[in-house]
Amino acid sequence: MEKIRAAVIGYGNIGRYVVETLRVSPDFEIAGVVRRQGGADRPAELADIDTVKDIRELGKVDVAILCTPTRKVEENAKPLLEMGINTVDSFDIHTDIAALRRSLGETAVKHNAVAVISAGWDPGSDSVVRALLEAIAPKGITYTNFGPGMSMGHTVAVKAVEGVKAALSMTIPTGTGVHRRMVYIEVAEGYDFNEVAKAIKADPYFVNDETHVVKVDDVDALIDMGHGVNLTRKGVSGKTQNQLFEFNMKINNPALTAQVMVCAARASFRQASGCYTLIEIPVIDLLPGDREELIRHLV
Amino acid sequence: MEKIRAAVIGYGNIGRYVVETLRVSPDFEIAGVVRRQGGADRPAELADIDTVKDIRELGKVDVAILCTPTRKVEENAKPLLEMGINTVDSFDIHTDIAALRRSLGETAVKHNAVAVISAGWDPGSDSVVRALLEAIAPKGITYTNFGPGMSMGHTVAVKAVEGVKAALSMTIPTGTGVHRRMVYIEVAEGYDFNEVAKAIKADPYFVNDETHVVKVDDVDALIDMGHGVNLTRKGVSGKTQNQLFEFNMKINNPALTAQVMVCAARASFRQASGCYTLIEIPVIDLLPGDREELIRHLV
Repeated sequence: MEKIRAAVIGYGNIGRYVVETLRVSPDFEIAGVVRRQGGADRPAELADIDTVKDIRELGKVDVAILCTPTRKVEENAKPLLEMGINTVDSFDIHTDIAALRRSLGETAVKHNAVAVISAGWDPGSDSVVRALLEAIAPKGITYTNFGPGMSMGHTVAVKAVEGVKAALSMTIPTGTGVHRRMVYIEVAEGYDFNEVAKAIKADPYFVNDETHVVKVDDVDALIDMGHGVNLTRKGVSGKTQNQLFEFNMKINNPALTAQVMVCAARASFRQASGCYTLIEIPVIDLLPGDREELIRHLV
Repeated sequence: MEKIRAAVIGYGNIGRYVVETLRVSPDFEIAGVVRRQGGADRPAELADIDTVKDIRELGKVDVAILCTPTRKVEENAKPLLEMGINTVDSFDIHTDIAALRRSLGETAVKHNAVAVISAGWDPGSDSVVRALLEAIAPKGITYTNFGPGMSMGHTVAVKAVEGVKAALSMTIPTGTGVHRRMVYIEVAEGYDFNEVAKAIKADPYFVNDETHVVKVDDVDALIDMGHGVNLTRKGVSGKTQNQLFEFNMKINNPALTAQVMVCAARASFRQASGCYTLIEIPVIDLLPGDREELIRHLV
């Protein structure tokens, strides 16, 4: 069987886990890693992997897995799709997903390629569970409760506040989709903790949530990549009330994101050209191996 | 929008819930109910619904929802597919699903129709969750724990034992996919309870499980259609161990089966001709309404 040649674009937290995941995925081979600095200061674990500045240095690439910041997804994906390379991203701005799907879909169809977008865990695998539960209990309310876990977006927002030297924003679920923010900061010299805390609580990222700011000496000592979800739905199947559903997970965040992206990369070769979110792809397409065997084993 | 005309084949427990579900599904209309006795002794709730012996009496039918015994699925589905009518069933003999899929798939392709098989909750919606979890944590073990709830198959098996007047077999989960059987029976006159209990425990349905037989005066007073599932997976994403997942539900059993079948009937019109299990169908196809709107709302 010919292996899928995947390039990893960006080598931050997610990129590192994607490389690990590709190494243990039987149907993939790593075409290379694309990063701003190319092969300079190449980390030890990439010793056996082509590390370049431009994807065109890598020979044939079937799919590019974008591990660059979410706001760069559209501009990074388009030129790849135009080269006929499938793309996968974990774009996570929920309100902009439909627009990104249209935009990349147009390019993908034109160049006979496939883009799978928002293929992380939320949006991503959680979306599949949400869609399934809404189908099988069409009336009712779904709550997605996140955490406890580090919020990347909120942490970045805190770091941008004047007087913050280092920060960590933890998302704490309090049920019914409501979250508390626990913000741990190191205060920069010459700043008053209470003033900085006030500024954080007034930030648009925090102003609507219950937010606690805590002063610590060493933020780094608190960082753990574990995260969690508790997704619940109470709904109606047909005319029957009180159908109860719950999905829980406790996971390493970047590891799960990376694994979902690799699954989506595999699935991209089983779709017609266009742009897809995970709920538009049969789950069997995420899996390697013989389809009939999978059906025997999983259905 | 033209509505999907669905016929309900068989009017037992599941058939009743399918009719209820179709009544509240915005994109369906009920073509009629097909049952052995046709319109004779028609239940009051079918007063406004054509109730016939043969589906050809119903005019145009787009999809037939089979609510007949699982062992009759193949012989019931084939002639319908040959008429170009899509079919949906909740065939639940896990070991025979792959063979049924081949057999109905051949007929469906030949007659440009779609069969969706094993579209209940297990097999069915649970299968979607199992496949998703195996994709996002490829190494590890999944346990599906059923109950507490009534097992139809085991209850039928108990009733076939000599000396049993009435019976109920409850499935009790004890974790790691192991189940206890709690069997409640009324003993027929002239039979010894201990002898009957011994015969039940020796039956192939029970001989490998921890089985308790309890004598009661009125089995009917114990029957409740509630059921449950606890599905767990502990696995590895990429090279990262200890990823923990759990899916729970507490549901009315026939109501959920019926709702899944109606979702599958809808999805059948969005697939190319052939035979499908639920894991081969994008979950978005199970849902009514505008796709972009669904993506906005669910992804």
